[in-house]
Amino acid sequence: MTSFVKETTNLLSRTPALLRTLLIGLPEAWTDTPDTAEGWRPRDVVGHLITGEQTDWMVRTRRILEHGTSLAFVRFERFAMLERDAGVPLDQLVERFAELREANMTALRDLVTDADLDRRGLHPSLGEVTLRELLTTWAVHDLDHISQIYAGLAGSHDADVGPWKAYLGILLRREDPSAVAG
Amino acid sequence: MTSFVKETTNLLSRTPALLRTLLIGLPEAWTDTPDTAEGWRPRDVVGHLITGEQTDWMVRTRRILEHGTSLAFVRFERFAMLERDAGVPLDQLVERFAELREANMTALRDLVTDADLDRRGLHPSLGEVTLRELLTTWAVHDLDHISQIYAGLAGSHDADVGPWKAYLGILLRREDPSAVAG
Repeated sequence: MTSFVKETTNLLSRTPALLRTLLIGLPEAWTDTPDTAEGWRPRDVVGHLITGEQTDWMVRTRRILEHGTSLAFVRFERFAMLERDAGVPLDQLVERFAELREANMTALRDLVTDADLDRRGLHPSLGEVTLRELLTTWAVHDLDHISQIYAGLAGSHDADVGPWKAYLGILLRREDPSAVAG
Repeated sequence: MTSFVKETTNLLSRTPALLRTLLIGLPEAWTDTPDTAEGWRPRDVVGHLITGEQTDWMVRTRRILEHGTSLAFVRFERFAMLERDAGVPLDQLVERFAELREANMTALRDLVTDADLDRRGLHPSLGEVTLRELLTTWAVHDLDHISQIYAGLAGSHDADVGPWKAYLGILLRREDPSAVAG
């Protein structure tokens, strides 16, 4: 029998190695550009992921297990990293994230089994949610934000691809989200 | 002095390890969904990247060095993988890609220096392009298609995030490219 918790943890556990492989030691020529004009650089994304490990995912998991729907989650601080991480090198942010994620994976394995997945909590805006939805969102949130890192990396070299830009959706979408590559 | 070729190779050389870290052994529950309704599953994307290593990037690099603009590039077979890779397991496709990319990185290092970057070739649709543009496009093409893998992975769990979907741009954009997450 497959385990939903194990399959979700399988993906979540890959993110530290993935960010190390992608970002540690990568030249700044690649890493210093946001995904869109008003967007986030790779370092901002990693900072946002750090906030999630510190204050969101496992904190909410514990709240569901301890309080169910009787105590709503605290709102996610979506911009906490901008001040907190100023001046910290990207490589160091990646390692900070990796430590936090690895500790959270250990905690998750100790606390949650598939039998808990239908337990419910209370989101301050979205209302009732299940632990299954929380854990899946944790994983998809990783995927969403790592894609944002990719868009920033690509954007750093927007000026260097010449006429090929017409074929590169990742560049076209930075300027027009509905653009379709040729 | 920074070297453009070295900085580009730095990113290109990471893709084999990156795809291994992301995909090898990942449960099929995550890997069997295309990025959009008419899109590609992760295995199709890896297959497309294999085609690039076999028939595009280094072949075009050599053609620029040997023939300049006197002999146009051969068109990229964008769907070659669909028949060629039928039945080959995803893990095996990742390893096939990794071998080809690693060999191409060795060849690139032996063949090209920054002094060659302004040399020109002829693209069958786009006209004259430089070797700098070709190499940058190779790297950004990786980023573009790895993002597509991320969208497929996320899409596999679209039904499991519940009301959080409203916050997850990577899911919303699979259905409406201009969607903005809440």
